[in-house]
Amino acid sequence: MTRSTDRSMNVAGPMGATTWAIAEGYIPSGSTGPEPAMTSHETACLLNTGDADAHVEFTVYFSDRDPIGPYPVIVPARRTVHVRFNDLEDPVPIPLDTDFASVIRSDVPIVVQHTRLDSRQAENALLSTVAYPISGGS
Amino acid sequence: MTRSTDRSMNVAGPMGATTWAIAEGYIPSGSTGPEPAMTSHETACLLNTGDADAHVEFTVYFSDRDPIGPYPVIVPARRTVHVRFNDLEDPVPIPLDTDFASVIRSDVPIVVQHTRLDSRQAENALLSTVAYPISGGS
Amino acid sequence: MTRSTDRSMNVAGPMGATTWAIAEGYIPSGSTGPEPAMTSHETACLLNTGDADAHVEFTVYFSDRDPIGPYPVIVPARRTVHVRFNDLEDPVPIPLDTDFASVIRSDVPIVVQHTRLDSRQAENALLSTVAYPISGGS
Amino acid sequence: MTRSTDRSMNVAGPMGATTWAIAEGYIPSGSTGPEPAMTSHETACLLNTGDADAHVEFTVYFSDRDPIGPYPVIVPARRTVHVRFNDLEDPVPIPLDTDFASVIRSDVPIVVQHTRLDSRQAENALLSTVAYPISGGS
Repeated sequence: MTRSTDRSMNVAGPMGATTWAIAEGYIPSGSTGPEPAMTSHETACLLNTGDADAHVEFTVYFSDRDPIGPYPVIVPARRTVHVRFNDLEDPVPIPLDTDFASVIRSDVPIVVQHTRLDSRQAENALLSTVAYPISGGS
Repeated sequence: MTRSTDRSMNVAGPMGATTWAIAEGYIPSGSTGPEPAMTSHETACLLNTGDADAHVEFTVYFSDRDPIGPYPVIVPARRTVHVRFNDLEDPVPIPLDTDFASVIRSDVPIVVQHTRLDSRQAENALLSTVAYPISGGS
Repeated sequence: MTRSTDRSMNVAGPMGATTWAIAEGYIPSGSTGPEPAMTSHETACLLNTGDADAHVEFTVYFSDRDPIGPYPVIVPARRTVHVRFNDLEDPVPIPLDTDFASVIRSDVPIVVQHTRLDSRQAENALLSTVAYPISGGS
Repeated sequence: MTRSTDRSMNVAGPMGATTWAIAEGYIPSGSTGPEPAMTSHETACLLNTGDADAHVEFTVYFSDRDPIGPYPVIVPARRTVHVRFNDLEDPVPIPLDTDFASVIRSDVPIVVQHTRLDSRQAENALLSTVAYPISGGS
């Protein structure tokens, strides 16, 4: 496995963009199934293929109040971090059952994908889409 | 929270594109579950990160008749609006159980994401994708 | 409604790209629920915002045999057509329970979105994504 | 059918990009329904429209360990291959119930779409999105 790891590290480099937008956001307050895997959650999957840690900031927008943030997240070099919006707590937790949107900025290029698990009803539903890259694309 | 709000407002600016297309559209007439959260709906999530209000117009296309619109929507500065196609009523409500598509134009750059909740059967299904940016990309 | 129709027709024009790819394709043979709305189906939603009819051709790729096609589809000016792959029959129907992919070409720019309704199990599942634009983007 | 095959082969050529990223990845360990169609799986659908075989390599990233790979996959000329991450075994199987992300490189342009079937609960859920093209776009 050392061989494989070395080889993959050599061919990689920073990929993606430095600013991303996710216009859809909603954390349902109800869940069905075992926690935490089946807790309703809204996730931003961040991938940093580069050799430097990514310092990322989330800003969250609402329909009826000023945006809040930044929520800081670090994605180490050559790692992926799947951020649950449910877990963002500083400066304030994101309100449940409320429409929101988010902008994600990084000091180095990253790739962002958006996923939601909705388990309000008995069976879970999933959605996913690549976030919208704004700038800094490689 | 004042600190956070100020900081996020400073770093933002207009993002996205001024024309977007969503080729998929369909509002089922049947629903299962508590209203309005579980009513079947087709949603366009609009994010305006800029300092000026966005004046947005929807045009809706069909398979067997001329397009209708524009349906006007305002997205205030630094706000997100999640527009349910079910709620568009002027000039005319969008017919149910009918294939449609839409073009979304804005006088300032916005980001658009498309989501559907389908609750015709007992458990809900979700789909989502970033809309297709046509022009005015930043 | 005449007013609205006229106005939307004036502001529109051809939008999108002339070649699109959908790498995912699979038509399950089983369905649950009332037909045809709940029949498992794989759909390519085509939007033609321009003033000229779009002459579209689908080519379908497989894992173990040569591609087949072209399947011709016409999308009239200022119309959307939601094509079910299940309904493509000439030159040959697309086999069920078989992985496939497709390339969609048009003589004028169109926008393409891919959706699947999977009703093999009791509750339906949906997926959707904008197809990948290859060339001719406006 | 010979006629159709010939014609589609003539109009095609290499399409897509040579590097793609999928920031979302997760293989649930539990499944409901008949195997293998209903086994929970994470899939990368690869389409090679060109006349030369595509030599593809997957590199898989994690949150808490070095990336592993490359996992080699060949997509023959004018073919699609729907790769289940569950089936990647060399150098090592991808761990279940673990967040991951992937980068997909090819020596010729291909198109990549990401799909997951989640059958942990009684009814299956689907998600899909076009992967993020990094470079080599045509």
